[in-house]
Amino acid sequence: MRLSSLIVPDLDASFAADPEAVAELFEELHVEDVADIVEAAERPLAVQMLVSLGAERAAEILECVEPELQVALVEQLGVERAVPIVHEMASDDRADFITELPEPLKDALLAKMDPEEVADVRSLVAWEDGTVGSLMSTDVLEVPVSMRVAEVIDRVRTHGEEAETVYYVYVLSSTGQLAGVVSLRELILAKPEDPVAQIMREEVKTVRPELDAEEAAQLVQHYDLIALPVVDDRHRLVGLVTVDDLADALAEEVTEDMHRMGAVQPLEDSYFGTGFWTFVKKRAPWLVALFAGELFTGDALEHFDDVIKQATVLVFFLPLIISSGGNSGSQSATLIIRALAVGEVSLSQAWRVLRRELAMGLALGLLLSTIGVLRALIWGDGPGVAATVGVTLIAVVTLGTVVGSMLPILLERVGLDPAVSSTPFIASLVDMMGILTYFSLARWILL
Amino acid sequence: MRLSSLIVPDLDASFAADPEAVAELFEELHVEDVADIVEAAERPLAVQMLVSLGAERAAEILECVEPELQVALVEQLGVERAVPIVHEMASDDRADFITELPEPLKDALLAKMDPEEVADVRSLVAWEDGTVGSLMSTDVLEVPVSMRVAEVIDRVRTHGEEAETVYYVYVLSSTGQLAGVVSLRELILAKPEDPVAQIMREEVKTVRPELDAEEAAQLVQHYDLIALPVVDDRHRLVGLVTVDDLADALAEEVTEDMHRMGAVQPLEDSYFGTGFWTFVKKRAPWLVALFAGELFTGDALEHFDDVIKQATVLVFFLPLIISSGGNSGSQSATLIIRALAVGEVSLSQAWRVLRRELAMGLALGLLLSTIGVLRALIWGDGPGVAATVGVTLIAVVTLGTVVGSMLPILLERVGLDPAVSSTPFIASLVDMMGILTYFSLARWILL
Repeated sequence: MRLSSLIVPDLDASFAADPEAVAELFEELHVEDVADIVEAAERPLAVQMLVSLGAERAAEILECVEPELQVALVEQLGVERAVPIVHEMASDDRADFITELPEPLKDALLAKMDPEEVADVRSLVAWEDGTVGSLMSTDVLEVPVSMRVAEVIDRVRTHGEEAETVYYVYVLSSTGQLAGVVSLRELILAKPEDPVAQIMREEVKTVRPELDAEEAAQLVQHYDLIALPVVDDRHRLVGLVTVDDLADALAEEVTEDMHRMGAVQPLEDSYFGTGFWTFVKKRAPWLVALFAGELFTGDALEHFDDVIKQATVLVFFLPLIISSGGNSGSQSATLIIRALAVGEVSLSQAWRVLRRELAMGLALGLLLSTIGVLRALIWGDGPGVAATVGVTLIAVVTLGTVVGSMLPILLERVGLDPAVSSTPFIASLVDMMGILTYFSLARWILL
Repeated sequence: MRLSSLIVPDLDASFAADPEAVAELFEELHVEDVADIVEAAERPLAVQMLVSLGAERAAEILECVEPELQVALVEQLGVERAVPIVHEMASDDRADFITELPEPLKDALLAKMDPEEVADVRSLVAWEDGTVGSLMSTDVLEVPVSMRVAEVIDRVRTHGEEAETVYYVYVLSSTGQLAGVVSLRELILAKPEDPVAQIMREEVKTVRPELDAEEAAQLVQHYDLIALPVVDDRHRLVGLVTVDDLADALAEEVTEDMHRMGAVQPLEDSYFGTGFWTFVKKRAPWLVALFAGELFTGDALEHFDDVIKQATVLVFFLPLIISSGGNSGSQSATLIIRALAVGEVSLSQAWRVLRRELAMGLALGLLLSTIGVLRALIWGDGPGVAATVGVTLIAVVTLGTVVGSMLPILLERVGLDPAVSSTPFIASLVDMMGILTYFSLARWILL
């Protein structure tokens, strides 16, 4: 249960009785919990809360609520009261928020804002969604390489309040390039009179703003970092991206991957946040495409009408054969898509994957084939049908593992998302090949 | 390309020529990069590197390499040389590492270790895999509530080196309970003479050691934290769990979910790290189970032998119908499994999901049905076949969305992992129902 469900019903009365006591309580709560309360409260009460809490706290809360509510709250606050709050927001959240505003409100707000802040917003919103640039903050602690530890700690004291993180301080060379990094931990442990150049780490992991956020997230995870500095092509510091912003981006990426694997176009919103017809539009294209592909199986089967007429028993095994290929294919595809995403398998290992999945397909196919042959013999379908079913099963399971593993690699090689080779798509492809194998074999063995 | 591929080939010669220069270079590199080099190097060279780098750095490296290599390196180092390195390891990594050791080596090492450390290891290894306890560290910075800010910063200076993180200092009441938390950021920004009790935050998010790591990860993500304190049932601080350990746990969880959705039993190792026969054992059970389920479709079809014999044209549409149900089912299952995992949908919303997916199934079914009917008419299969195909398609697509969305919710309700309702499993279930609907309708309409 959320805290908000306990608090919101009584909030209106409490606020009327003693607004200061309520503000004090909210000061002590986690900002995300206060944001939950603001989200659950009636609109006028929410606005009243923001006003009474002061610009700094209001900015933190505004950063945590959903974009639609951000816009609604600022509309009710009015530009005059919104400007000081927007001023206090973190640079990355501020840029995201301003993008969401409707045109007249956006212009009115930008007109009242500090010109430097406006320039900052404009440079941040220029980065494409999903890049490091779109997630980075420009509120970075930077010091010249000539400083001593005590001076750097002083800088943290005076400028720490506005910084996105105080846990890393970036050291700039005299020409403005990123020369090194020093963590607050190292600063605290060092002697105050030491030059920062002596304790800084020169081997800094950096990213470029145009890099894919997912790759930056992998870097942060591999090196157990809290933040990564963002540099331009001349190695000048332009911002920093934090682990929590990257983690959110990564979680979204995983959701997108899963949706693609399940043949749904990625959603922008949550399950219930997505409208019914938007959902239909996200699901219908893949369903129709897969349906269209599967229509060809009808043509293939028509081609074998004579075989079917002579031995309808073959039809009894059709769903079994089709699904076995699809299942082994979806296993391989899942394994490879995820292995590519986490970097366990690289494109250069395609041949190794192929050899492995080929052997795996033969082993698994042989297993299912044995069960299938036994079943055919027990049903009394005769050795011809049993042989056809047995050989086809080995073929389709192997086809499944090979197609399922190679298609994601192929897609990655040509620069597409491997998750788009969604498992149902692989199943359709394998279905078609399975039908051709099965009835060709049957015609050859039985007729 | 990894740094290690450039460095390792020349390492042996460089080490022989000037071991100190190499050690100095490694000091400057990121520990994960050095660990990559150790992993790629020949075993004797790797041991030589660990020895030459000193216990503290060797411990950091040992924390980063794969468990099998940890064991192999310590076997070659011998207990005497291993003890100081193990002493320097972080408490959580040390406990994990000792669990991996073979019995005689483990006992020999524990016998030489500090008794307090041994007790710490024994208490940490007691926690089940996947719980917060199994990930937590006991190297926590804690101070009494009576301290002033300057004293706390001094404590960070003197004890920070061994702590898992210095970014949060936990404040304990006089009776040993967790009274509050103060971040290094707040300490730096505060006045040195302030009592810590005045600046600490009393509203602390805590977790219990028996909590599922995935839930702790969601908490860390929701509140944008770097670490979470772990407390026992009397609210005493027993450890702390950091965002990077939780992120690793979460990534493993996502991989497991994806594998389960693709009908593969979760792997313990990476794709290439898993042996061929282990892989077969992880894949065969699901394939056989799905195959066994699909065998019943044969029985069902045999039951309709008369219908098939009279109208083989019905067979042409069979793969199309089966796959449409499977595809719509796998879409719904994917959406709901992920929505449950990230907390967008809760069990109490089952009816809302059902109503939604029912409507979605009808809409999508109607769409595919229209295409199917047109195709049947164009093929010249007659209005009877067209009607059968059309009605069946609406039924199977709706069945797919309903079964696909409800099965994960049902599994979660009875306490199983919803991802186990792997999409191929749903496809098998829907296949069976699709066949029954299709041929029953055909018998009724056509015969």
